[in-house]
Amino acid sequence: MREIFFLTPEQAEEAFYRAFQTLDLTLMEQVWSTAPQVACVHPGGDLLLGVPAVLDSWRRIMHGAKPPTVTFRRLQVQEDEGTRVHLVEEWIRPTGEAGTDATRVIATNVYRRHDGGWLLQLHHASLPVVRAKRATDDEEPQRLH
Amino acid sequence: MREIFFLTPEQAEEAFYRAFQTLDLTLMEQVWSTAPQVACVHPGGDLLLGVPAVLDSWRRIMHGAKPPTVTFRRLQVQEDEGTRVHLVEEWIRPTGEAGTDATRVIATNVYRRHDGGWLLQLHHASLPVVRAKRATDDEEPQRLH
Repeated sequence: MREIFFLTPEQAEEAFYRAFQTLDLTLMEQVWSTAPQVACVHPGGDLLLGVPAVLDSWRRIMHGAKPPTVTFRRLQVQEDEGTRVHLVEEWIRPTGEAGTDATRVIATNVYRRHDGGWLLQLHHASLPVVRAKRATDDEEPQRLH
Repeated sequence: MREIFFLTPEQAEEAFYRAFQTLDLTLMEQVWSTAPQVACVHPGGDLLLGVPAVLDSWRRIMHGAKPPTVTFRRLQVQEDEGTRVHLVEEWIRPTGEAGTDATRVIATNVYRRHDGGWLLQLHHASLPVVRAKRATDDEEPQRLH
């Protein structure tokens, strides 16, 4: 039986980024749903499906790593009774050292209600190498879509 | 009043990729929700928030383009009463020409129920430059997370 619950999607999200920043694999495991539909895409990474593949990826990311500095900001929230979708901007310094540049990441985080608590079901992160442009700009860089 | 509805998330998804492949901006506009929480991330792109920004991006992508070849495959479905989350693998040939390599894209598509129909609320696409690795592999490429 799971003993840890997060009363809101925001609490689950705080715990997710705290687990990443403190390299706390136990907390990371508690944040994720145990449902078979769990999925994760790391920046530049492939689709990982299922709890074992997702948690194994975090285990490998955290193993021997220096604690990164991670800050995040919710840019949009899509609400439904049992599902919450957060569009999040992350700033990550891999080694946590001041003076190094932080990398900006865009993430979709999907939370689901389970037995009165909220757990993470999907984390899809990507690197925005193309900045949003205005409609008045003349040239458009080559884009896939 | 919107006159077009999609009875299932799958129908909305078929229409979304058909609109992209046929450069049909009218159909593309019909696929997207008109709710203020609409969001889109193109591969390598920044977060676009709101219907005007999202549809403007598609208008710019489609303007003067050759019809691409787009195929897709749902790899996972997360269901809730009013929300559906699809993890989708896309294969895109930008100019649609046979013999050119197709690019593989991983996308999260979120659909919401509206007045009995389903509409697209979020499309988050990214390029998997790192392939999923096995836990038995010795070396891990440098990854942000």
